[in-house]
Amino acid sequence: MPAPSRRTVLLLVTVLGTLAAAPALAQSNERPLQKAVIQVSDNDVQKWNLALNNARNVQDDLGGPEATDLEIVVYGPGIGMLKSDSPVAKRVADALKAGVKVVACENTMKTQKLSYPDMLPDIGYVTAGVVELMKRQKQGYAYIRP
Amino acid sequence: MPAPSRRTVLLLVTVLGTLAAAPALAQSNERPLQKAVIQVSDNDVQKWNLALNNARNVQDDLGGPEATDLEIVVYGPGIGMLKSDSPVAKRVADALKAGVKVVACENTMKTQKLSYPDMLPDIGYVTAGVVELMKRQKQGYAYIRP
Amino acid sequence: MPAPSRRTVLLLVTVLGTLAAAPALAQSNERPLQKAVIQVSDNDVQKWNLALNNARNVQDDLGGPEATDLEIVVYGPGIGMLKSDSPVAKRVADALKAGVKVVACENTMKTQKLSYPDMLPDIGYVTAGVVELMKRQKQGYAYIRP
Repeated sequence: MPAPSRRTVLLLVTVLGTLAAAPALAQSNERPLQKAVIQVSDNDVQKWNLALNNARNVQDDLGGPEATDLEIVVYGPGIGMLKSDSPVAKRVADALKAGVKVVACENTMKTQKLSYPDMLPDIGYVTAGVVELMKRQKQGYAYIRP
Repeated sequence: MPAPSRRTVLLLVTVLGTLAAAPALAQSNERPLQKAVIQVSDNDVQKWNLALNNARNVQDDLGGPEATDLEIVVYGPGIGMLKSDSPVAKRVADALKAGVKVVACENTMKTQKLSYPDMLPDIGYVTAGVVELMKRQKQGYAYIRP
Repeated sequence: MPAPSRRTVLLLVTVLGTLAAAPALAQSNERPLQKAVIQVSDNDVQKWNLALNNARNVQDDLGGPEATDLEIVVYGPGIGMLKSDSPVAKRVADALKAGVKVVACENTMKTQKLSYPDMLPDIGYVTAGVVELMKRQKQGYAYIRP
């Protein structure tokens, strides 16, 4: 029985290489990091505290900042959470120090005539909070709306 | 060195064709359209306006109706948003004109003794709002709950 | 023209077998069961009833307990729903009988100084409600937040 020709073997290697890539593509959302995007869109201090508790509980339960990728997206009536006079300013600073991303919606800021100096230090900004929530879900982040 | 036989080549072509299809199947949720389903289940005009703002912001930011597939699902205490006397009737009409789908939950309508003539024109209907939300998420829509 | 050698055929069979497995892996979230995780985190009896209605409507519409996998996750200010004096105790019992999982967040219980005897019978427990919500979404459950 003759061995398969070199060209046949070459083709099979190409085929097997592509095969190995296919499940990898399909599983690209399953990175080791536990990822969640947390929405804050209510004008409600209790909700702000709950969102911050949620982030802390996830880090405590899942192995700290190294094992988690958390982002709090603040928009609409929730924007007061990130103004410089926010009643949860200290807790937002703690969350940022713990590696939680906190981002404000610039569309909301425009509507409410807020500019960057009106906001807490070290937070991030996105053009549209709702688009950020869509983008993150597409990237495999769980959605949490406290 | 002999060339691979025709039958070997034929088999390889079949294999490569199937391989090309495998990642396509895996990525079937990643169509170019940016898709989101927006839930309205509160009896709260501010929430209704926020949901409509959200839809408009997504279209503005992501390239208009051609680039987005948005559906607002209204159920439970939110159903008043779609009654013919809705305080946001004009804005719902604008959203429909902009290509946003707006659907009412028939289970809720039954409970609240509402029939189709009681509702805004041109909206859609689903048997159960919550089932629609499940179906859309399975189809790769992001979930937004303003 | 010579037929392909046995070794070539064997390699092709291996390749085709792997190919058949690739889409299966990619679609592992699409099991026949319709799965949803329902969040209750408000101190609001109307929301508790809405969550229980949602679970019942999903079962009614999608073929009963055999066809659905539903879990209600209760945390934060929502925890009162699962205390033994809950105004919806009877409805929670009915949901459990209908095969809906109902779980309480132990982090919340600790904060509110609640222990197991304070809670409704037959419910389940998770360390952190928010982590459960992340886990379920990763497993392909739709997220519903009434």
